[in-house]
Order: sequence, then C-alpha cells, then structure tokens
Amino acid sequence: MTKGNINVSVENIFPLIKKFLYSDHEIFLRELISNATDATLKLKHLSTLGDAKVEYGNPKIEVKVDKKGKKLHVIDQGIGMTAEEVEKYINQIAFSGAEEFLDKYKDSAKDSGIIGHFGLGFYSAFMVAKKVEIITKSYTDAPAAHWTCDGSPEFSLTEAKKTDRGTEIILHIDDESKEFLEESKIRELLLKYNKFMPIPIKFGTKEINDPDFEPKTITDKDGKETKEPHKKITVDNIINNPTPAWTKQPTDLKDEDYKDFYRELYPMQFEEPLFHIHLNVDYPFNLTGILYFPKMTGELNIQRDKIQLYQNQVFVTDNVEGIVPEFLTMLRGVIDSPDIPLNVSRSYLQADGAVKKISSYITRKVADKLKSLFNNNREDFEAKWNDIKIVIEYGMLSEEKFFEKADAFALYPSVDGKYYTYDELYNKIKANQTDKDDKLVILYASDKDAQHSYIEAAKAKGYEVLLLDSPIVSHLMQKLETSKEKISFARVDADHIDKLIKKEDTTISKLSEEQTKELDELLKELIPSEKFSVQLEAMDSDASPFMITQPEFMRRMKEMQATGGGGMFGMGNFPDMYNLVVNTNSELVSEILNTKTKKKQERLINQSLDLARLSQGLLKGEELTNFIKRSYEMIK
Amino acid sequence: MTKGNINVSVENIFPLIKKFLYSDHEIFLRELISNATDATLKLKHLSTLGDAKVEYGNPKIEVKVDKKGKKLHVIDQGIGMTAEEVEKYINQIAFSGAEEFLDKYKDSAKDSGIIGHFGLGFYSAFMVAKKVEIITKSYTDAPAAHWTCDGSPEFSLTEAKKTDRGTEIILHIDDESKEFLEESKIRELLLKYNKFMPIPIKFGTKEINDPDFEPKTITDKDGKETKEPHKKITVDNIINNPTPAWTKQPTDLKDEDYKDFYRELYPMQFEEPLFHIHLNVDYPFNLTGILYFPKMTGELNIQRDKIQLYQNQVFVTDNVEGIVPEFLTMLRGVIDSPDIPLNVSRSYLQADGAVKKISSYITRKVADKLKSLFNNNREDFEAKWNDIKIVIEYGMLSEEKFFEKADAFALYPSVDGKYYTYDELYNKIKANQTDKDDKLVILYASDKDAQHSYIEAAKAKGYEVLLLDSPIVSHLMQKLETSKEKISFARVDADHIDKLIKKEDTTISKLSEEQTKELDELLKELIPSEKFSVQLEAMDSDASPFMITQPEFMRRMKEMQATGGGGMFGMGNFPDMYNLVVNTNSELVSEILNTKTKKKQERLINQSLDLARLSQGLLKGEELTNFIKRSYEMIK
Repeated sequence: MTKGNINVSVENIFPLIKKFLYSDHEIFLRELISNATDATLKLKHLSTLGDAKVEYGNPKIEVKVDKKGKKLHVIDQGIGMTAEEVEKYINQIAFSGAEEFLDKYKDSAKDSGIIGHFGLGFYSAFMVAKKVEIITKSYTDAPAAHWTCDGSPEFSLTEAKKTDRGTEIILHIDDESKEFLEESKIRELLLKYNKFMPIPIKFGTKEINDPDFEPKTITDKDGKETKEPHKKITVDNIINNPTPAWTKQPTDLKDEDYKDFYRELYPMQFEEPLFHIHLNVDYPFNLTGILYFPKMTGELNIQRDKIQLYQNQVFVTDNVEGIVPEFLTMLRGVIDSPDIPLNVSRSYLQADGAVKKISSYITRKVADKLKSLFNNNREDFEAKWNDIKIVIEYGMLSEEKFFEKADAFALYPSVDGKYYTYDELYNKIKANQTDKDDKLVILYASDKDAQHSYIEAAKAKGYEVLLLDSPIVSHLMQKLETSKEKISFARVDADHIDKLIKKEDTTISKLSEEQTKELDELLKELIPSEKFSVQLEAMDSDASPFMITQPEFMRRMKEMQATGGGGMFGMGNFPDMYNLVVNTNSELVSEILNTKTKKKQERLINQSLDLARLSQGLLKGEELTNFIKRSYEMIK
Repeated sequence: MTKGNINVSVENIFPLIKKFLYSDHEIFLRELISNATDATLKLKHLSTLGDAKVEYGNPKIEVKVDKKGKKLHVIDQGIGMTAEEVEKYINQIAFSGAEEFLDKYKDSAKDSGIIGHFGLGFYSAFMVAKKVEIITKSYTDAPAAHWTCDGSPEFSLTEAKKTDRGTEIILHIDDESKEFLEESKIRELLLKYNKFMPIPIKFGTKEINDPDFEPKTITDKDGKETKEPHKKITVDNIINNPTPAWTKQPTDLKDEDYKDFYRELYPMQFEEPLFHIHLNVDYPFNLTGILYFPKMTGELNIQRDKIQLYQNQVFVTDNVEGIVPEFLTMLRGVIDSPDIPLNVSRSYLQADGAVKKISSYITRKVADKLKSLFNNNREDFEAKWNDIKIVIEYGMLSEEKFFEKADAFALYPSVDGKYYTYDELYNKIKANQTDKDDKLVILYASDKDAQHSYIEAAKAKGYEVLLLDSPIVSHLMQKLETSKEKISFARVDADHIDKLIKKEDTTISKLSEEQTKELDELLKELIPSEKFSVQLEAMDSDASPFMITQPEFMRRMKEMQATGGGGMFGMGNFPDMYNLVVNTNSELVSEILNTKTKKKQERLINQSLDLARLSQGLLKGEELTNFIKRSYEMIK
C-alpha cells in the first residue's frame, strides 16, 4: 500500500484560474476593490484598537484607466504589505490574508465589514491582464515592495520607492480584454458592483464651483452691475455612496431619505415607491435591507431581477430566487447579508435552514409593516390598495403564514369605492346576504362597465357588490371558500339575482301553465340550444325581460386555469356556457304571447335576445352591424 | 531582487475545490459520467486503431444508488487505469488525461467525442462525498488498483482484485448531500445532463416480456382455450438515448423521426411541432442541432429556456441568450457545439466573432428553411402562418438580414382568408387602392368582429382588407412604410373610407350651406367636444349616418409604445382620440334637420351617437344599460 498526498501543481491550476475562476470576467474589478476595501478596513480596525501608530484619516480607493498605456490602476491607502507579506499572501494562491486577520482579531473584528475569504480574488486579475504589478508600502516602517508577474507562475520581487502607505495594483490589460480600458465600461462596472461599498472610490475628477469663493459684484462704466464669474475648483469624483440608507438606523432616516435612496437605486424609474420596509436583524442571522412596494400594474408579473443582493455592501446578484419568497420578488430594493451561502446550488439554498429563516423573517416583516400601515393611516392604505393588491393576494395564495396575517389588512373593495376587511364585510352583509341554506353569498363583479346591468340589479336588492378584478382573485376566492365557513362567492352575472341568493319568498308567475309551455316551445324553436340554455323565471315585472347569465363554477374554473394552476384539468378548452333567463312576468313576454303573427313574435324574441347579448358583451361582428342597421331604421 | 514561482498548496486549494468548483453541486454526476464516457471512447479509439488487443464489445456505464450504505457508484467498462496511471492522473489535481490523450492521438482522435479538458471533473465528487474510492483495472495486463481518499489531501493506493476491465468510482455521500442518495434525484440528474450521451447508461433494471418466448395455447378440461402467461425477463434499464436525432444525417431521418425526437425532448408537451430545421455545419465552426417551430400563442413571449445547448452530447445549459438571435429563442430544440466558449461572460460572448457567425448561420438556415417550406407546399405554409407569424415578424423587426430574406415568404392575410406575399398584395391592390397623390394605401383590420362594419364599408368599395392582429405588427408596418416606397397602412376605422383612400371624385352634399351650418351648430351643442371631433362629410346616402373613427397616427404610436419601444415618448398616456363622422347625405340627417321640436332632434342625435359608439365598442356601463332599457321600450 502506498500513502501520499494529492498534489496540485501551479502550472496546471494557474491556467485554469486565469480562464475560469469566475464565469464573468468583469468580476475581477469587484475583487480588486474588495481587496482594497479590506486593506483600508484593516487599517481602520488597527487604529481603533490603538494597536498601530496609525492615523486613519480619510482614505479612499482610486481607479485609473490609462488607455494609451493599456493599463488599469487600483490604488488604496490601506494597510499595505511588506515584502515578507507579499511573499506570504500573494505568492501562495488561495491563502487568505483576510481569514487570517479575522482569526487573529476574532472578537473585535467581527463587525469590521472585511470581505475577503478565499485568497483567490487577486488572481482574478489574470483573467483580463497579461501582466500584473503590485507596488505596496506597509503602514509599518518596512520599505516598499514591487511585485511583478507576467502570467507565468514566475514572479519577481524588488524594493520600490513608494513612500505613502497603501497598495497600487497595475493591470496590463490583455488584447482580448480591451473593453476594460474604456472609461465607460469601468464606470459601468463600478456602478454595478461597488456603488455602495464602504470606502469612497475616486474615478477621475470633476469641476465644481468653489464653495469658499464669493463672487463680487462688479459695477461697469455704465453703472451696470454684474457678478464676477464663479471660481471653479477641481475635486475628486467619488463614484460610490459609502453609507447607503440600509446601513443606517431606521430612526435616523426620514421618509424623504428612503425616497432618495430609491431614486439612487433606480435612476431610470420615475414613479415613486408606495412605501418601504426597513429590514434589520442580527440574530439568528445578519440581515439588513430596504424593500419597496412599487406601483404594480394589474398583471401578475414575477420579476426576479428587481431586488439586489449584497454581502457587506458588495453587489452580488440581482437573482434572489429562493432567498425571498416568490410573491415578494415583485418588490424592489436591496438585501445585504453575509449569511447567505451563494456558491451553492439553488435547490440546496431552498432547503438550507438559515435561508428558510431569512425567507420567513422577511415575510413576517412585510406582513407586520402592512398591518401597521393599515392601522396608522387606513385612508392612505385604501388609496394604495389597487396598486399593491396583486402582491398581497399572491402572498395569501402562496404562503400560509402570510394568509393568516393578511386577514388583518387584506381589503375587499366594493363597486362603490368602499373598502372592507373580511370581518367588516362579513358583518355588513351577514343579515341580508345569507341564503335559505344559511350560506353567506358574497357577490362580486370583475368589471364595473361590462357587468353594469347585473350590478344594478343586485344593488336594487340592497346587496353589496365587490369589485374583484385582479387576475388571480379566482384562486383567492377558492381558497377563502375552503378556509372560511359557509360562504361562497358568486359573480353578479352568474345567475338571476333571486337565484344567486335564494330566499324563502318566491315571486308568483303571471303566466298560466299552458302559457308557460307555449312560451317555452316558442323559445326553444328560436334560440340555438348549443349556445344558450333557456331558463324561465318568474321575476319582478320591471326586471329585464331577457338576461344572459354564465354559471359561476365553470367560469371560475376556466379563469383559474387561464392564470396557471388550479381549476380542473382540461377545462380551459371547454366552450363558454351561457343561460338565457326569461322573465315570465315582464310586459314584453306577455306581448310576445299575445302577438298573433309568428313573424312578429320572432322579431320580438330576436331583438330581445340581441339586447340581452349586448348587455353581456356577446353581440359582435356581423350580428352587431345588422342590429345597428335595424336600429337606425327603427329610430327614423 | 527575488525571483521565484507562485505557489499553490493543496491544503489551501482543496477545500475551495470541494466547496466552490461548480456553483451547482449536482454537476458532479455529469462530470463523473463524462469521465466514464471518455474512458469508454478512448478504448473504442484504441480498438479502431488496432493499437491494443482490445475487444470493444458493447460497453455501458452503470449508476447505482446504495441508500443504506450511503454510497453512489459509477461504473464503466472503459480503458481503466494502472496504479501508475492513477498516480499520474488522479493524484495531480488539474492534470487532464483527456488533453494528453488528444495530444498523443492528435489527428485520429479529433472526432472521437472525448469530452474532458481540465482534469478537475473528478474532484467535483468531493463536493458531495466525504470519501471517494476508485477501483480500476486497465485494459493492459497490469493488476487492478484501489485508491481511497477521505477528503483530506491524503490518499492511499493498494492493489485490488477487480478482474474485469474498467473503473468503478464509489462516492460516500456526505450528510449535507443526502439528496443524492434518492433514486428519483439521480434519475432526474441523469435525464437532465446525460439523456443524450453517447455510451448507454444503465440505471437499475426493468421487467419486460421475453421476446424469445412464445406463449402456448392451453385447452382446459371444459375445452376453453387460454394463452399461458407470458414469460418475463429482467433487463438493464438504459436511461439515455446514445444516438439522438441531431447526431444523424438529415437524409437518414424521416419526418416521423423528428417528431419522435421532439417528444423525447419535451415529454410533457402534447402539441406537435409545426416543422423542424436540421442544423449541420463543420466550417468555420462545428455545430449540429435541430430547431423546432412550436405552435405559438398570440403573445410575444420571449422564453430563453426552451432551446438546450450541448457540447459533445453533454447537456450544458438551457440559456442560449447571445448564441441564438433573440427572435429565435421562441423556438425549441437542441444545439450541440464544441466551439461555443461557455465559461466567459455573456457580454464577451456577444462580441465573440465565432459566436456572431454561429448566430448569423442559424438565422440564415431558418430563413432558407422557411422559404423552401413556402415554395414546396404553400397551402400548408399558409395554414401554419398564424402560429408562426410572431417569430417571423419579430425576426423581420430585429434582424435586417432576415427582413430582406423574409420578403420571399412573409405573408399578409386578408380578412377573407387569402394570403398574399408583399409583391402579390402590391400587384393586386395597386390599381384600385392608389390615392390621388399616387400613394398606395394598404387597409387592414386588427379584429374582424370589432371592426366589422368598417370592413364591410371598405369591401363595398372593392378594397382588399388585411387582417393584421399580432401584437408587434404596428412596428412592422412602421418599418415597411419606410423601407418600401410610397405606401402607407391604414386601419379601416381610421377615417371614413372615402378619406382613407382619397380619389378625385367627390360626392356632392345634399345640404345647403345654411343647413350644413345649422347641423354643425346643433351637433356641437350636443356632442361633447372633449370626446369627439365632429366631421361633416358628404357620403353615399346609404352609408352609416353616424360613424366613429380613430386617426391612424396617434393610435399606432400608442400601440407601438404599449408593445415596447418605438412610438413617441410619453404618447402612451395620451387619451384616445376619436372623430364623429356625420354623413350629411343620409336620410337620418335630413330627418334631424326637418324635425321641428328640439327635444326630438336631441333624441335622434343621441340615439344615433349611441349606435355609432356601439359599433366602435365605446358604449359601456350605465350608458349601455340605459340604451338597452330604451331599446326594450322601443320594441314594445
């Protein structure tokens, strides 16, 4: 038996690191700036500890493009390295100085915000550079060092003349990576990955009015007064915001600060967010962030790329699938957590205990915030309801915990613009809308215009009609019907109103049995049975003579299928089913029966059917054109 | 100056490989099966060369789950390794045996399909296993070897008793990776990554009827004949299809074979594809594949995950963004190419010359195929047009080359179900639909039902009306208007038909100047000017008395904005603009003027306006309910 150590040779692994360390080559800049940030934060930590005779000052990180020289510079004013440290940290791939530092200063450095972990980040420079130089001066008295490596595993190390503290990395960009010599590209990357990193990043300079200069008023020879031109000064162009809103305490922020930060996050977004939720938790995991409710369109548009995920203020991804519950991916904002394992599979992520806790923490915070918004300013909450309901309804359908909590703030608007909670609605309609089988019938419309005549008929009975028009509300009704007791939802045009809420009292038909039979036969002869089932009803004499209804069950199943999931398999392909309800007590029906010529009977029935179809939006195309022509004739 | 070599220690890099080699841990299985495939293909190559005294036979790869023992086995019957080879290939991380093999057999092995490159794949086993064993027997006479490593860099190597050629890898799955001990999970992974790999993969066994057994007929004592039960045998369950359709020559495949392969790719898809395109090119890059046109719904639904990308029959990704032009991501199918660099950034990919060539090759192939389908069976092509037009229209808008080629097969259907190419349409309508300014006006409807009366009016003039109802067609019209000469599109309800195509002849108004003035004042008094601009027109006396039109320009701009891009900024928020065209020669207008009571005039005008609105779908809600009530009164 042989025993031995697995071996890795730098000749083999180095080419792989150069090519494949990250699937996105552009990551190299994020890594170098993370290193520069760590170097600065380490210095800050040492100066806080008093461990080093160090004046921290106001260090920044500078990024410079030298297009002509084909070089990119990243310069920090951090802790720096001695030649020995370069040997130790740089010449040994995958040896993490950050880990070592955190180990050494275990307790005190826990919250220092140091990013590094794996000691690989620096080598990502070779993904885009054919040669890399490091010029570095430690905060100690040791002389500066100059390290050079041309991408082969060989390096050289000499003394350097650098006198100011910190590290400069010089990348000699290779020919395939020329894009990283464009100022615009570097700016784009800095704004993508480093926009909120904690150390100021200088990228070029800009001219501003000198704040210390006060322009004098000059009087010319004609006595005309002018101001002398403002003095301009050149200052550093700082590209990042080192203290983004989410890193601050909620108590230190005003509503306007949250709105400003939203504009910073989404500069192309003109609409203001409806409200925000500040996340802030230390235990059992670290997580901060701000979520915003944007104005939603009516559609269920799950966008997975609107929430940005950060780790210690470094942008990581805009794919928060698995971290945030699906219904909340419709929101916008940022989440920052060092505790989310990122380099593992999404399926693992979803099963991970910590991530599950994060997800349910966020859900709970959102529910609590909604509840307090509702309690503190109901009027405002109602005004925003239509813009946020899709999120809340989707949450109620997909997260049981949220469903329970939502009972306190989910609203059910009426066609008249009133907003009820479920309990309020229940108490309001219980007396009048409970049918003879003791079931509470909740009436609703999906479109105030299209169902106008049906709404009016329900209102005439003193019933409350809700306006439920979001695309997933049919699923929600289904869920409410099973979780609440003895209730059912019915759209106002699902049947004649007296049959939707059946009471004991019935209206007596004016027609004799023979007349009813005569009418029935007449109608069956003229009305195509594949389109409408005729249903004779004794109703108020002034109710519509003819009326088309669409049974609730089938329609709802079809709607549920159309919006994905639920419903019954294959039902989406069924044709629409309609009933023709004929009011046997209407004057028009009497007239139909009293008319002796068959031709006139037919004309009356057809015109009435057309009007009933018109009311349901079913008269179209040639039939509508003909109806209109006939009607022009009639008004003349 | 110091010179030296950068260093990598296995203690540092090994933990990183274990955790982060691939962001998806499940990749390990793909890697091990790729290795097993390579081992088998190498043997095949040697046996073809006659280099080795080797009988290739019908080797397969076996995957076995031992849930109780917490082990996963991957067993091949390939080339195997001697103890020396294990030392060389396994104990040295990132030393690729495949590369070495390909180097050695440069010319002959070019098309052998060998996958390996980087010598890292094997180590991905440690992402999910706490201990890994290799038991391997070379095809040579050397004794078998047994290698064990418990995840520390230490390994042990002893002789093994294995006598049959090949390699067995045993993974002792760690506790966090228990999911990989579920048969269902392994099956899922094999089907995802290895479904079309070139060596048969055995995963369990299954019972089938013994094909060699012929059931005898048995006559019982009552003379009743029954067949004896079929004999069952147990056979290997082969989970993959080693020779998927795209690896074969188009000439060897029938239409049914393509459909079968589609069902294999999309087992949950019940609808058949409309047609397929077989891609096959050697130069300047290697690419094979089959693309399918599925039946499209009306919506522009860019799905980026329906085309699968393979490299040498190994599944890589279903994200082909940047490789396939965007309009073709609506298709389905597979693309297999060893020449697509995958581990680089998407932005780099899009700029890569080879990838650009691939993208334009695919575009060209699709255009050519569409042209030949159109030429070979126009009737069939027309029948499929509605299901494919969205792809073609989107392609015409986004790829200039495709736009040019599409002239030969893009169709313009009429409301009567005829299909014209652009040239055919042009020749058909040139004479009749050219206006007095020598501009050809192409009339279209977007909805046969909603615009029925307007279509009829155009047809009455002998005009051809197209039915253009796809959501992006307004963009296409815009493009055609600028690329073709002197043409314009107009929807049939954009104006009165005589004004849409202005000819020299004008109809004379029956009204005197005073009457016209009187009518104008009367209408302005009653018609709300913020909703309709009144437009008096002398038309045929039997044309509609009142008619509502919507000017083309504004409507189209709004539509273009609604479907993203184009149009004019901010126009989407403009209210809809309508004109009310009143036919001064209609009987009804005469009647209005002749009626002496103001009240009756109002009634006539309002009822006519309602009918005109009805015809444009603008009469809704309460106004519609009232109209219907009034109409019931009128028929009595």
